[in-house]
Amino acid sequence: MPAHDSLDLVIRRADVVTASDRFRCDIGVRGGQVVALGHGLPQGAREIDADGLLALPGGVDGHCHLDQPLPDGLRMADDFFTGTRAAVCGGTTTVIPFAAQEKGASLKAAVADYHRRAEGRAVIDYAFHLIVADPTPAVLADELPALIRKGYSSFKVYMTYDDLKLSDREMLSVLDVARQNNALVMVHAENADCISWLTDKLVGEGRIAPRFHGLARPAAVEREATHRAITFAELVDVPILIVHVSGKEAIEQIRWAQGRGLQILAETCPQYLYLTADDMGLPGDDGYEGAKCICSPPPRDPENQAAVWRALTNGVFSVFSSDHAPFRYDDPQGKQPGGNRPSFEHIPNGVPGIETRLPLLFDGVARGKLSLHQFVELTSWRPARLYGLYPRKGTIAIGADADIVLWDPHKRVQIRNSALHHAVDYTPYEGIEVTGWPVHCFSRGELLVRDGQYLEPQVGRGQFLPAGAPMLG
Amino acid sequence: MPAHDSLDLVIRRADVVTASDRFRCDIGVRGGQVVALGHGLPQGAREIDADGLLALPGGVDGHCHLDQPLPDGLRMADDFFTGTRAAVCGGTTTVIPFAAQEKGASLKAAVADYHRRAEGRAVIDYAFHLIVADPTPAVLADELPALIRKGYSSFKVYMTYDDLKLSDREMLSVLDVARQNNALVMVHAENADCISWLTDKLVGEGRIAPRFHGLARPAAVEREATHRAITFAELVDVPILIVHVSGKEAIEQIRWAQGRGLQILAETCPQYLYLTADDMGLPGDDGYEGAKCICSPPPRDPENQAAVWRALTNGVFSVFSSDHAPFRYDDPQGKQPGGNRPSFEHIPNGVPGIETRLPLLFDGVARGKLSLHQFVELTSWRPARLYGLYPRKGTIAIGADADIVLWDPHKRVQIRNSALHHAVDYTPYEGIEVTGWPVHCFSRGELLVRDGQYLEPQVGRGQFLPAGAPMLG
Amino acid sequence: MPAHDSLDLVIRRADVVTASDRFRCDIGVRGGQVVALGHGLPQGAREIDADGLLALPGGVDGHCHLDQPLPDGLRMADDFFTGTRAAVCGGTTTVIPFAAQEKGASLKAAVADYHRRAEGRAVIDYAFHLIVADPTPAVLADELPALIRKGYSSFKVYMTYDDLKLSDREMLSVLDVARQNNALVMVHAENADCISWLTDKLVGEGRIAPRFHGLARPAAVEREATHRAITFAELVDVPILIVHVSGKEAIEQIRWAQGRGLQILAETCPQYLYLTADDMGLPGDDGYEGAKCICSPPPRDPENQAAVWRALTNGVFSVFSSDHAPFRYDDPQGKQPGGNRPSFEHIPNGVPGIETRLPLLFDGVARGKLSLHQFVELTSWRPARLYGLYPRKGTIAIGADADIVLWDPHKRVQIRNSALHHAVDYTPYEGIEVTGWPVHCFSRGELLVRDGQYLEPQVGRGQFLPAGAPMLG
Amino acid sequence: MPAHDSLDLVIRRADVVTASDRFRCDIGVRGGQVVALGHGLPQGAREIDADGLLALPGGVDGHCHLDQPLPDGLRMADDFFTGTRAAVCGGTTTVIPFAAQEKGASLKAAVADYHRRAEGRAVIDYAFHLIVADPTPAVLADELPALIRKGYSSFKVYMTYDDLKLSDREMLSVLDVARQNNALVMVHAENADCISWLTDKLVGEGRIAPRFHGLARPAAVEREATHRAITFAELVDVPILIVHVSGKEAIEQIRWAQGRGLQILAETCPQYLYLTADDMGLPGDDGYEGAKCICSPPPRDPENQAAVWRALTNGVFSVFSSDHAPFRYDDPQGKQPGGNRPSFEHIPNGVPGIETRLPLLFDGVARGKLSLHQFVELTSWRPARLYGLYPRKGTIAIGADADIVLWDPHKRVQIRNSALHHAVDYTPYEGIEVTGWPVHCFSRGELLVRDGQYLEPQVGRGQFLPAGAPMLG
Repeated sequence: MPAHDSLDLVIRRADVVTASDRFRCDIGVRGGQVVALGHGLPQGAREIDADGLLALPGGVDGHCHLDQPLPDGLRMADDFFTGTRAAVCGGTTTVIPFAAQEKGASLKAAVADYHRRAEGRAVIDYAFHLIVADPTPAVLADELPALIRKGYSSFKVYMTYDDLKLSDREMLSVLDVARQNNALVMVHAENADCISWLTDKLVGEGRIAPRFHGLARPAAVEREATHRAITFAELVDVPILIVHVSGKEAIEQIRWAQGRGLQILAETCPQYLYLTADDMGLPGDDGYEGAKCICSPPPRDPENQAAVWRALTNGVFSVFSSDHAPFRYDDPQGKQPGGNRPSFEHIPNGVPGIETRLPLLFDGVARGKLSLHQFVELTSWRPARLYGLYPRKGTIAIGADADIVLWDPHKRVQIRNSALHHAVDYTPYEGIEVTGWPVHCFSRGELLVRDGQYLEPQVGRGQFLPAGAPMLG
Repeated sequence: MPAHDSLDLVIRRADVVTASDRFRCDIGVRGGQVVALGHGLPQGAREIDADGLLALPGGVDGHCHLDQPLPDGLRMADDFFTGTRAAVCGGTTTVIPFAAQEKGASLKAAVADYHRRAEGRAVIDYAFHLIVADPTPAVLADELPALIRKGYSSFKVYMTYDDLKLSDREMLSVLDVARQNNALVMVHAENADCISWLTDKLVGEGRIAPRFHGLARPAAVEREATHRAITFAELVDVPILIVHVSGKEAIEQIRWAQGRGLQILAETCPQYLYLTADDMGLPGDDGYEGAKCICSPPPRDPENQAAVWRALTNGVFSVFSSDHAPFRYDDPQGKQPGGNRPSFEHIPNGVPGIETRLPLLFDGVARGKLSLHQFVELTSWRPARLYGLYPRKGTIAIGADADIVLWDPHKRVQIRNSALHHAVDYTPYEGIEVTGWPVHCFSRGELLVRDGQYLEPQVGRGQFLPAGAPMLG
Repeated sequence: MPAHDSLDLVIRRADVVTASDRFRCDIGVRGGQVVALGHGLPQGAREIDADGLLALPGGVDGHCHLDQPLPDGLRMADDFFTGTRAAVCGGTTTVIPFAAQEKGASLKAAVADYHRRAEGRAVIDYAFHLIVADPTPAVLADELPALIRKGYSSFKVYMTYDDLKLSDREMLSVLDVARQNNALVMVHAENADCISWLTDKLVGEGRIAPRFHGLARPAAVEREATHRAITFAELVDVPILIVHVSGKEAIEQIRWAQGRGLQILAETCPQYLYLTADDMGLPGDDGYEGAKCICSPPPRDPENQAAVWRALTNGVFSVFSSDHAPFRYDDPQGKQPGGNRPSFEHIPNGVPGIETRLPLLFDGVARGKLSLHQFVELTSWRPARLYGLYPRKGTIAIGADADIVLWDPHKRVQIRNSALHHAVDYTPYEGIEVTGWPVHCFSRGELLVRDGQYLEPQVGRGQFLPAGAPMLG
Repeated sequence: MPAHDSLDLVIRRADVVTASDRFRCDIGVRGGQVVALGHGLPQGAREIDADGLLALPGGVDGHCHLDQPLPDGLRMADDFFTGTRAAVCGGTTTVIPFAAQEKGASLKAAVADYHRRAEGRAVIDYAFHLIVADPTPAVLADELPALIRKGYSSFKVYMTYDDLKLSDREMLSVLDVARQNNALVMVHAENADCISWLTDKLVGEGRIAPRFHGLARPAAVEREATHRAITFAELVDVPILIVHVSGKEAIEQIRWAQGRGLQILAETCPQYLYLTADDMGLPGDDGYEGAKCICSPPPRDPENQAAVWRALTNGVFSVFSSDHAPFRYDDPQGKQPGGNRPSFEHIPNGVPGIETRLPLLFDGVARGKLSLHQFVELTSWRPARLYGLYPRKGTIAIGADADIVLWDPHKRVQIRNSALHHAVDYTPYEGIEVTGWPVHCFSRGELLVRDGQYLEPQVGRGQFLPAGAPMLG
């Protein structure tokens, strides 16, 4: 290694873990990238001793919501700054939030607006998924293909929510665009009509407390839409990714499809491992604390949790994301019910979790539920590949960005919202103790977190990542 | 990298592919191990330019038979020399054949004898599986645990073949030893009684030609034993690996078990991708050419082939092995029927394939059926891990043995037995054209094959590899 | 049996077969009902010797279309006279066609209109299913409950066809009415949007010949809607009946649901046993003969036919109906494509089959595919029970209507349209030879068919049957 | 009906229920058979008014053990007299116990011996199943075919119990004899080796109390043998009947086979609806009261009970039997552990239930879990058909034996052993309250039970019934 190629950073004695490998060596970084792996690397401008720590590729959160414009006077608590700050404090070095089209507006406008929101705010790198809410002929024929080519190669579609949902016909059209342009479609799979019918029944009976949210969205509603989405993918002959799968009924459908050779990918999230429907029934002082745990699909029960854990290791799930949806609890623009929004149906859906995602799953590693390699695969390698960011992100290898997290696998931490870095006033995981925590975090070779302390790097240092084609194999 | 750490070998401009990653760099080798990965490594004692080639971890053949003592006057054509020569010419740098206990004899004796057969003959590294054919109390209580501790951490059991098969009770006992001593059991799953009953029927009707081998071992016979073995693993609570799975019926059982969270691993082989029952019906000049393709379980049909290809990519199979069983065709000690062995039931089971294993599967990569990473995982990384040889084998990473194959992904080769290096007088894949072929092969940094030519290294240079505990995650 | 209770009819030496029993005896009829079973019954006013023949309960065709008003200038060839004449000549003594609501009109109007069409025309008894095409609040709250109480206890809903299809929300509402009023909903399960998307693709590519009908409605489209309908039934907690199931994909869903304890009933029809997609590709002299076999869901292939036969005997199917849809072939108001209807999408769906239904299934009895009791159950007993006509119809028992068919189980007949009694100019089963044929048919004790000859009874003698609640057990 | 054909008995105003039909009429009996059904039948020698009662075909108990010779000093409490007395008091008019071959002895000898035990003792009619425990060539080639022809058309084989179990090869041979001679094989499906291995483990750990019986025979052990038996039936191509299925794991296998078109029939028993593993853990005064509920397969848990109820109505089960195995509790020849039989493994397997079988299932009718027709089918019609006794038994129809039970569907009875008529000193159902009870029971027209009182008919009046071929449709 010639002298003029001096190293900016050397991480010594790293116990490197990738999606498949584990080896001890020094990691040499220059220009924000890993350029050398070996023993006895020359002195770097900066040095850090990683002895006793794992060196993992930084997490890629392939499903989170930051500063997303919303109807009905609702507001997300996290913008690109607080959101990415929280992310990196939790070991995540790349986020992929959503540029959401409004019905009646263009996709391009959504993307432009979302760039404005991100620019100068993010402290780690980011890409965008699109949300296609209004697939007009122009969107399908022009906007979407053009955006895919420009680095927006994944988009989400909704089978529920009035302002977002697509008809079956629209779903097919969007999937066809994905097939022809080599993009990946993420699907929120719940049957809108079933939910509205059940909701109207419940509300009509005066059952409006937060816990009725779960009864309005039973597992069969998710299972049905999952089966339907699979059928669309089969007819169009294109891979899809079912997001935030909550339990065994949807898992059964996905596994059935995978067994037939269909490329149906799936994602789950911490809330389906740690929360249950009972958590939506917590009264709290004000009678609606369960609202903190309202998300869609809703958390189920311990048997479903076990099924989700199982499906993390037997190949059903490819991706483990946060679905971070930051709404404050004590806030009329957040979870707080108001005069004209008294019922569960008006409580914004979603839970925060961008910072706790990795530790909550790592605890499963500590408890022997999944391997270190499966952890890396689910949280970093696979999302990086599926969303077209690999090999820049998702691994520790020559040429990859030096997004590296030094992880203490034995550290025990009790989750407290007061210690988190998002702008939300609660965490649904308050009090849960986990084993394993990210200690130091590098983004492109820059140390952003040291000993768990956020180092206040330049706000806006995060870069937009144009995404390439999905890599499925 | 200090000057005194000079490199023995540098592979320049390698397109490195591991089970999860792909990156371009130079690979530095010293003392038979990979010690540096990076750009612009210092000059090595030996240099090779890998531009345009893939650098893959050498194949690990986790299921092959070499110089295995046999009853009934049968003889395997390949010993450790010809077998490992053929292996490395096909891109495989580690083999794991079987030290087979005879009923009435000790396991230790089988291991000692097998070491004698290997020593001074192998040209690549090797480990041993054990075959437990007579699990006496002494074997279960003493021999087996001692051998596991000494580096024989996997063993095969048979549910068929008179001289090898275990009773259900013996299966349970052997699995229990595996559980208590952290070893991995490989299972040949076919129902012995069903086979003998069907065989007697066929033979009684004069249906003795090679093709009736397939009728004597229908898929249901394999499916049943697979389900039974799964049940044993469930009761004992231990992982098992079902070897040489032939088609959709057994796959269905394995997938069912995996879906329930059981750790049922599975292997398939080239014969189930490329041969069908019809191949056992080939008459040839002498009326029994079909004998060339006789193996157990037998090849099925195109629908089953498709199911096997599918299961290679959706997680059902962990390992792709050759099950190389080298019997000469024109040989009374091999496949040739003789006076006292006129019927299919006397033809030794098995096909050769140690050299063609990797190219036959790689052709699937070329045709888009599986990814490069899946190829590496199935043929090298996963067997290395399951059989306790990782991280020494199975990857290209700092500290791993420099067992590296430089592979031309575009080279088209028509398989001809005349060009192969085993001692068998035929290949069942004669005439099949594949895309992709191993060009140069290194074992611990030593070039054994250059431009497809075997370089005649020191016979016996291969080392015995004591195996550690299986790594399942 | 007192003398004053003289018998109108005695059928001597009958080999009586019901859904569960078979016994030999005389059958005594008075007032149109069976009043005595035994040996040596007193002389009846009329006597017939049934020796050598089976006495079966007359068929109940639970799914047929007669004189149904249609849009687009289409016209059904059979009205209540020709339709019921054909039915009874084929051994069917009860028909249940559809009173179809038009969008924008009331259900009551449809029922009233349909009574006008039936009255004075039918030669056998009939009930009505309703078709709910526009479930307005008034329909759901008032009309439908009132009609159920008046004897219209079953209704069909469509998940496809622009003029008939319901939204998911409407489906749920209709099912809820069924649950609250103890009615049975029949579901035509195909995904409308998938069909229209595929159709537009095919038509856009100029693929408009009749055979493309099959490609526009692949099995996945039926499977999806079947799964969705099952989900609705599960959420509402009400039995449903999936009509005209075409093959293994939908069968798999239904069996899955039945295994979970859901009351999902299913029907199939002769076209799924005897036709395949190839039949829609028959060119004929005019290039569109395949139109004769166009129906929805479309016929599939031999493997699916086998699956349908199998599901007739293992409990998946409860009912075997004709789905008789009488369109003339050489007729611009029928199957003939016209100037403004050049494509397969404009060919009216459906095949005639009211007369051939029973012989086509009975041939399966003759070939050992199902038992005589299963035949009676599927064609008479079960539809009578499900559609609220039992015990008046569906069996030969004391108190039942004397709707009795004397069947020659050995008679071989080649089906020829020229010998049939409907008003359609073709049968899709032309030339098929079957074993078993109805020889004499009684409706309420009156002989309508003798030796296969229609006896021209009083037109309009058929009575409307108010239906009771569905009997599911 | 001529005067000289006077009736021996007329049951007036009967509400007759068969496997498929229900109708009100008088039933005329002569010579022990039903000879007339109708209204206003002439006066019989004997008359009974059945108004308000159901007239059901008498139960056929297709699985019960009476006076069966046993090893190890064990003795059955019921012989043909007490057993059939109890049966008829519970509404059963036909029993089919087992003539059991001993290993080393002939089948013919077993049959001859068993006739001696039955003759002059039974008060209702009976047929024999055979138990084939030693299928020697002579048994397979001669004895068994000869016995089938003589009226012993069903036989049971065991996959467990040392003195009874067959090897896989023997199973195949026996099934083949069944196929060639048109007989029905009943299979006790549990894996013997798994049970012995688990038992030895438990006993070795000192876990010998009755409740460990359940742990020695977990559901997987039953599931495995069920799958294996299914495979044998598939290979031989012959129907089989899996007896006493205990829960969802075995049910899943059976349903899977039925879905593939295999003729796999299945039976369950009251113990799997009403008992759980916890009942084997009852201590009682003497610490082993759980022994009362020991049977094999063992009762499972409420979730499995629900699965069994469900499988009674969706076609999985064809037959509901008692598996009456009468061992006294307070008896060293029965359940009582002794000096040399201290462990659960020595407690004889089986529970009494010949008298309570029908009321326990009928309670499910009362609670809406199954229909009256399903009740008749499972308890009378289907076993009569499968075991070759139909149409003499299993229905109320012209020509059938007048084995008729007049049943009060509303009577509530609390089960007390003190009120039962067997010779066992306990019932596992003590204290359970059921709705519905048999009030009057006729066997071939003779009233044996009136108002629930046993009328002490001639002991030995029961006749042996030579069985015909199984009727499967």
